[in-house]
Amino acid sequence: MKKALPILGLTMGDPAGIGPEICLQALRNSAGRKMCVPVLFGDVEVLQRVARASKIPMPGCRVVSISELKKISRITDPLIVDCGAIVAAKVVPGKVSAACGRAGYIYIEKAIQAALAGKIDGVVTAPIHKESLNLSGVKFPGHTEIFTALTKAKRSCMMLYSDKITVSMATTHIGYRDVPGKLSVERVLNVIELTAQAMTQLLRREPRIGVCGLNPHAGEHGLFGNREEEKFVAPAVKCAQKKGFRVSGPLVPDAIFTTNVRKNFDAIVTLYHDQGHIPFKMLAFDTGVNITLGLPIIRTSVDHGTAFDIAWQGRAEATSLFSAIKVAAGLANGRTNK
Amino acid sequence: MKKALPILGLTMGDPAGIGPEICLQALRNSAGRKMCVPVLFGDVEVLQRVARASKIPMPGCRVVSISELKKISRITDPLIVDCGAIVAAKVVPGKVSAACGRAGYIYIEKAIQAALAGKIDGVVTAPIHKESLNLSGVKFPGHTEIFTALTKAKRSCMMLYSDKITVSMATTHIGYRDVPGKLSVERVLNVIELTAQAMTQLLRREPRIGVCGLNPHAGEHGLFGNREEEKFVAPAVKCAQKKGFRVSGPLVPDAIFTTNVRKNFDAIVTLYHDQGHIPFKMLAFDTGVNITLGLPIIRTSVDHGTAFDIAWQGRAEATSLFSAIKVAAGLANGRTNK
Repeated sequence: MKKALPILGLTMGDPAGIGPEICLQALRNSAGRKMCVPVLFGDVEVLQRVARASKIPMPGCRVVSISELKKISRITDPLIVDCGAIVAAKVVPGKVSAACGRAGYIYIEKAIQAALAGKIDGVVTAPIHKESLNLSGVKFPGHTEIFTALTKAKRSCMMLYSDKITVSMATTHIGYRDVPGKLSVERVLNVIELTAQAMTQLLRREPRIGVCGLNPHAGEHGLFGNREEEKFVAPAVKCAQKKGFRVSGPLVPDAIFTTNVRKNFDAIVTLYHDQGHIPFKMLAFDTGVNITLGLPIIRTSVDHGTAFDIAWQGRAEATSLFSAIKVAAGLANGRTNK
Repeated sequence: MKKALPILGLTMGDPAGIGPEICLQALRNSAGRKMCVPVLFGDVEVLQRVARASKIPMPGCRVVSISELKKISRITDPLIVDCGAIVAAKVVPGKVSAACGRAGYIYIEKAIQAALAGKIDGVVTAPIHKESLNLSGVKFPGHTEIFTALTKAKRSCMMLYSDKITVSMATTHIGYRDVPGKLSVERVLNVIELTAQAMTQLLRREPRIGVCGLNPHAGEHGLFGNREEEKFVAPAVKCAQKKGFRVSGPLVPDAIFTTNVRKNFDAIVTLYHDQGHIPFKMLAFDTGVNITLGLPIIRTSVDHGTAFDIAWQGRAEATSLFSAIKVAAGLANGRTNK
């Protein structure tokens, strides 16, 4: 018997960005359709405007409202869920606005509700704009934090996954100077465990995990910094080893990402946003997938922003969205789709 | 008339590391001899022990003491300057020790004195061990700080130079959490100017300089961090532009190092050790040269550590030392040796 395709919610992202046009591409693309049954949470009139502007024809899906979606007991075909979150005529492509920030948030909220209700198997998100989101009064800095809060996850973290390099982060969208205050043995251990569990699912074997130090040269035995490596990283690594994980650290941050050292690890746990993002984007700029680990639902995302400078022009590439769909489908199927 | 070769001091580095054997290689190598007249500041008996252990024959140079060096009015041939800094028999390869830390410091001190006295045209340093240095009671964290203090330089910074990527750093060997407190408009401006001046010398044209922000997404207009980008980076960039430098920033740290963005810049000014070192070592691990900018004398260095695990075994590669000699010779000649 042929296994049913996973049903994946796509969120349209900020209406003024490239989210709508890459979602249109995903809905129309036959390769995308072979991986999942897509359910797009967005605004139909925005999609129609973007379709005209970017010369990507509207897909011939059924359009339903949120209340109609609630009545569907089992989704079998692609859908567009019209969330009625924004007046389409007021959207200016490439422009920061509170209304777009709010709409982007509503798509996410509705998709999460559908996933928690078991209507969809996971959520794949198109990019939102952090300034618009903030202007709208939503006080989450990004997707990871929204998903963590709305799914009431006890622990979660961001992981950037690709064929070339995979990194997870103990802290993400906070200021540089706020990082040390957020580190604890418990937090580092949580991120090690979440990373190891996800990599086991994705690779279908025991993964090798490396954990970075915080300071130059990982502190060089206390010479630089406040011994954060000894306080937070080393005890977390030891505890994870005792639990049976194959993990080592604290490792020297500027050594672990060099070709020869990197190859010894399937994933690298980093302590702050740029420690992970700089090497990841250097090696996997167009192919990366952002996964939120630790949630009760599957969530993956594109690895790029709203690209306001090219929004609604039909120039945006949906490569990263297809990768995100592939990884979400793989997680939903409990296997990788290599 | 053929131009005279620059006379370059080499410091032997930590006696227990790979410094002595790569210096032996440099002194014996004919390619090295074509770029400069090398003057090695070290300990002859240590070199003899290393020569036997690593099976690299001693070079046939004249050996002089520090007081004999002072009497030479003009150096014309390779020399070994025997600094008498350590009892050779007591050196244990691969071991941290105060005595080795102290000896490594003395070679540097003597070479700087010779450069300030005009006897040599620049100094190329082999690696010291930061823990040994610290144990010896020398309270400088590394070469950059020693050179800055002993040459009484008013401003200086570290630059890592290679054919693939060049980065300079506003802060280096300090703890993660001490970085924001060390940033100022003056400091960032100094590093921009020093970087632009050095790149002009090395490339013989006006360089394009990019400057990183401190926080994720360069603060995303104040969303993350304490507006360090607006306080320290933007005003420094504006001031440098007014002075005629071709510079832009603050730029998003995880975007600037991607292939497509990086190619727009000849050098990237970073704000902390790992922001510059992680991308640099990923791209230029074996070929990088460390240059101290802003000194009254030329100083370049290998881009690797003491490699205690392979010390005195004749396995160390002198590639990075040859690159450092080449760049120092280029700077001494007022031109690049491409």
